[in-house]
Amino acid sequence: MTIEVIAIGHVRGGRQEALDDNWDRVQAAIELDGNQFQADALAGLADFSHVEVVFHFHQLDPAKIISAARHPRGRTDWPEVGIFAQRGRMRPNRLAVTVCRIIAVDGLSLRVTGLDAIDGTPVLDLKPYLSGFAPRGEIREPDWARAIMADYW
Amino acid sequence: MTIEVIAIGHVRGGRQEALDDNWDRVQAAIELDGNQFQADALAGLADFSHVEVVFHFHQLDPAKIISAARHPRGRTDWPEVGIFAQRGRMRPNRLAVTVCRIIAVDGLSLRVTGLDAIDGTPVLDLKPYLSGFAPRGEIREPDWARAIMADYW
Repeated sequence: MTIEVIAIGHVRGGRQEALDDNWDRVQAAIELDGNQFQADALAGLADFSHVEVVFHFHQLDPAKIISAARHPRGRTDWPEVGIFAQRGRMRPNRLAVTVCRIIAVDGLSLRVTGLDAIDGTPVLDLKPYLSGFAPRGEIREPDWARAIMADYW
Repeated sequence: MTIEVIAIGHVRGGRQEALDDNWDRVQAAIELDGNQFQADALAGLADFSHVEVVFHFHQLDPAKIISAARHPRGRTDWPEVGIFAQRGRMRPNRLAVTVCRIIAVDGLSLRVTGLDAIDGTPVLDLKPYLSGFAPRGEIREPDWARAIMADYW
């Protein structure tokens, strides 16, 4: 069964291509669609330091989505893991979720850093980052998951 | 422009209706669709303590989505904020993102606690929780955002 979603807005500025690393130095705007939303859609968001951005890897060819287990970033020194045990882009539904730092909110425009999405990316949702939504309990992750993030931001 | 996504699986078990609070005591399974995925889709996920679940508030009537600013949970003692400054369900695209604790992985079945989704909910994506994807820098949030989470888990 198909579920239809629409872009609530788009990423403007930032990178033109998806590089692997150093995303925290990138500043970009998310411009909400003025045909869908009144000026108050972002009201109160500036009281938060961070926002969770749900976006769509729109440039990926769906035919290239690989469901089989693979090495993250093709690194054969890291284990082969299933698509739902990694955050790679070539995934079913091509959905991304990233917590960004809020720089400024101005009407329907939101400026952030640390958004790992290229210029023109469709944005599907914005949620304020509540500390209460952080994971409860001890965090455990394999070594490759720490290594892959070493230069990401 | 419409973007089509499909359920990669469904929530099985857990609550039958969406209560406001005490979600951490709820255990539920996410059963991936065996027609779409091989047995290795979740391979390696058990090495993580937590998983980020993207799901769809499928029971909400789209006609009831309110884009105007409103009081979270109708609490008039809390400020009116825009839909993208709160995590309420009645939101455009009806997308949810929650970090859950992994209890067990068995083939295409994943047992978790802390998934605030009811039995039958379509799941759109699963991503391992990497500590490197946590927000960078100090977290700031308004008082109501802490208050709303007091009994949530």
